[in-house]
Amino acid sequence: MKSLISPAEALNRILENLPPDQTIRCPLTKCSGRILKESVTADRPFPPFDRSMMDGYAIHTEQIDSSGVFEITSQAHAGSPEQCLGSKQRACMEIMTGAVVPSDANCVVQYEATRRIDGKHMQLLDTSDPTAGDFIHSIASDRTAGEILLHAGTLIGSREIAVAASCGCDTLLVSKMPTIAIVSTGDELVDIATAPQPHQIRRSNDIMIDAALKQVHMPATQFAHLPDEPEASTKRLSELIATNDIVLISGGISMGKKDFVPTALDALGLGCQFHGVAQKPGKPLGYWSQPNCAVFALPGNPLSTLTCLHQYVIPALFNALALKGNSVLQKVHLASPVKARDDLTIFLPVSLNENNQATAQPTNNSGDLVRICKSDGYIALPPNKEKGYKTGKSFDFHPWY
Amino acid sequence: MKSLISPAEALNRILENLPPDQTIRCPLTKCSGRILKESVTADRPFPPFDRSMMDGYAIHTEQIDSSGVFEITSQAHAGSPEQCLGSKQRACMEIMTGAVVPSDANCVVQYEATRRIDGKHMQLLDTSDPTAGDFIHSIASDRTAGEILLHAGTLIGSREIAVAASCGCDTLLVSKMPTIAIVSTGDELVDIATAPQPHQIRRSNDIMIDAALKQVHMPATQFAHLPDEPEASTKRLSELIATNDIVLISGGISMGKKDFVPTALDALGLGCQFHGVAQKPGKPLGYWSQPNCAVFALPGNPLSTLTCLHQYVIPALFNALALKGNSVLQKVHLASPVKARDDLTIFLPVSLNENNQATAQPTNNSGDLVRICKSDGYIALPPNKEKGYKTGKSFDFHPWY
Repeated sequence: MKSLISPAEALNRILENLPPDQTIRCPLTKCSGRILKESVTADRPFPPFDRSMMDGYAIHTEQIDSSGVFEITSQAHAGSPEQCLGSKQRACMEIMTGAVVPSDANCVVQYEATRRIDGKHMQLLDTSDPTAGDFIHSIASDRTAGEILLHAGTLIGSREIAVAASCGCDTLLVSKMPTIAIVSTGDELVDIATAPQPHQIRRSNDIMIDAALKQVHMPATQFAHLPDEPEASTKRLSELIATNDIVLISGGISMGKKDFVPTALDALGLGCQFHGVAQKPGKPLGYWSQPNCAVFALPGNPLSTLTCLHQYVIPALFNALALKGNSVLQKVHLASPVKARDDLTIFLPVSLNENNQATAQPTNNSGDLVRICKSDGYIALPPNKEKGYKTGKSFDFHPWY
Repeated sequence: MKSLISPAEALNRILENLPPDQTIRCPLTKCSGRILKESVTADRPFPPFDRSMMDGYAIHTEQIDSSGVFEITSQAHAGSPEQCLGSKQRACMEIMTGAVVPSDANCVVQYEATRRIDGKHMQLLDTSDPTAGDFIHSIASDRTAGEILLHAGTLIGSREIAVAASCGCDTLLVSKMPTIAIVSTGDELVDIATAPQPHQIRRSNDIMIDAALKQVHMPATQFAHLPDEPEASTKRLSELIATNDIVLISGGISMGKKDFVPTALDALGLGCQFHGVAQKPGKPLGYWSQPNCAVFALPGNPLSTLTCLHQYVIPALFNALALKGNSVLQKVHLASPVKARDDLTIFLPVSLNENNQATAQPTNNSGDLVRICKSDGYIALPPNKEKGYKTGKSFDFHPWY
């Protein structure tokens, strides 16, 4: 392990050494959660015609007389082609929400403001009430044709999908999802379905990482388990690096005799951007890269893996997709004082209450996952001389996925 | 439309009339985002043996003499079966993180606290430092065998997946995902890929709803578009209701001449739990149910659809899956005063800044989706006599999906 760098510097070095982002054209129905890589332009005005905003009657206000009576000469439904009131005095059109307002009407009066006299006539309840423009959603009043509605770099959610649909985009140019390999290490680990020997434990970090990635819609594309056997493992790593954009290795990076990962990555010619961060948990975190692949070496303790995944890997994946961060982190306040360090950033699991107050959920160093389940996320406590932070101090909250 | 009820009463009636939740057994790798329907129990102690927490040497503190020198007689790697120090005086074992601590040792000393003399010997740097229990993660210290680690009703995320994996659960009993049909209505609507006539617009609500549901990992299973033709549409609705748990209808529920949805649902024998909520947007919202299907009739204006989806449908879906709500909503504060109503709840789109301050993002009634994209979510403003709320007033924040 080389000298420790700060978490901020670690994230900088990661972001500066990511593989280039790629774009693909994708059916609109599959674009949710991806990053838009082109702009979406209004192909016609929005709304495309003078649109009735209510169910009622289209009239011209200049034709209102003291009786307030109009003859119903036509009907317009949403989806009917445009019609006219015509030359008849005090003619009106019964009109539905979404229908085209006739060009010789200037107002829509809601049913509720009228009284039906008979099959052919209606009467305004208050002749002074209707005003030119009422309940007409005018052509182009929202957007003009040619206006850019969505910009490249936007994270696509339900609203952006609807905007693109309304412009006729049945496909979009979006970020290609990175291919991600999750690699576990350690001879003590056995498959979930295997009955472990007394000295063995079941593998869980790989499936935990994949579950979190699935929650952010970036599931892993490949899994591998490496034995504590440097030669075979280095060969397998080489293949995984050649065929994936991102490789996430869990374990094998500390000072142990069989912690072969750093040596293997160096031997494969990848550049070590850092190995060792002034943080707890996750001090042994390392990052290696080559032009087309980024390799995260995550410490194997479950809490370390989980924290580094949320603090570094997921932000890097979003960045690799060219997301211009558009989500604001929730600000939370300490419910009671917490200890910090003067030399390391502490990532502290916390639970939240309804007033944005964060309560520390202490974990021991064991990485007991059940304890971690009691927290909602974590906050980062930067090193300070006082070795602590007081009640009320404010921090960004990072939710667990 | 019947008399208006409050949003809280509307949600109550929805939750009281949902189809019964069902359970299925699911491979663990696919359980992320689902609700656990059984408890997960520790099948053995955690950790299952006295586990070394560091790379270094296992010793017995009673054997420390003034020289601090120990003979290295064995090595233990993670994954090696348990060994003993044996009867030799001042024997020690070189031991790696995750390895079994020998039962005749009582302490692990880190490499950093020792000096290697030669291939066979190491020396403690400070003979008074090692203490019984140091860096030993004792058997069962986290969890005892038989302890319940995850309770039924938990939303499964990455941490729960890891806990289940460590207990050997390669499948879990989870909520069956409801089958969801999304139904659009309106003769003015055409397919995304179709060039619309001047009086037509492209369909976007259906794909918007599906995108939001995908974000919460509950994608629609079926789509249908109903023409404004009551007989054929009623028949199609009948089929959709018979084959789905949840039917989400967009549009066709106002007072318009062709708004056939309420009549059709009544005719099909479903019970109308409500139709009309004292809220803006989304006043015409309706909810019909029968024992095995819940039908949401969502107003067709895009902002109304989006708001009702987030306020009612998504909470109901989570509830239908038997989720005991375990997420706390973010509390935000008004950055400036906002207008409210004395008769309706207003769902107000807002953008957030980094201090949990909410700024109103005004929309007109048009449902201009591009304007909605400028907000991060919404807050609910209950009716009040003052017809407004002051700067600093606190509300729950609901993010858009």
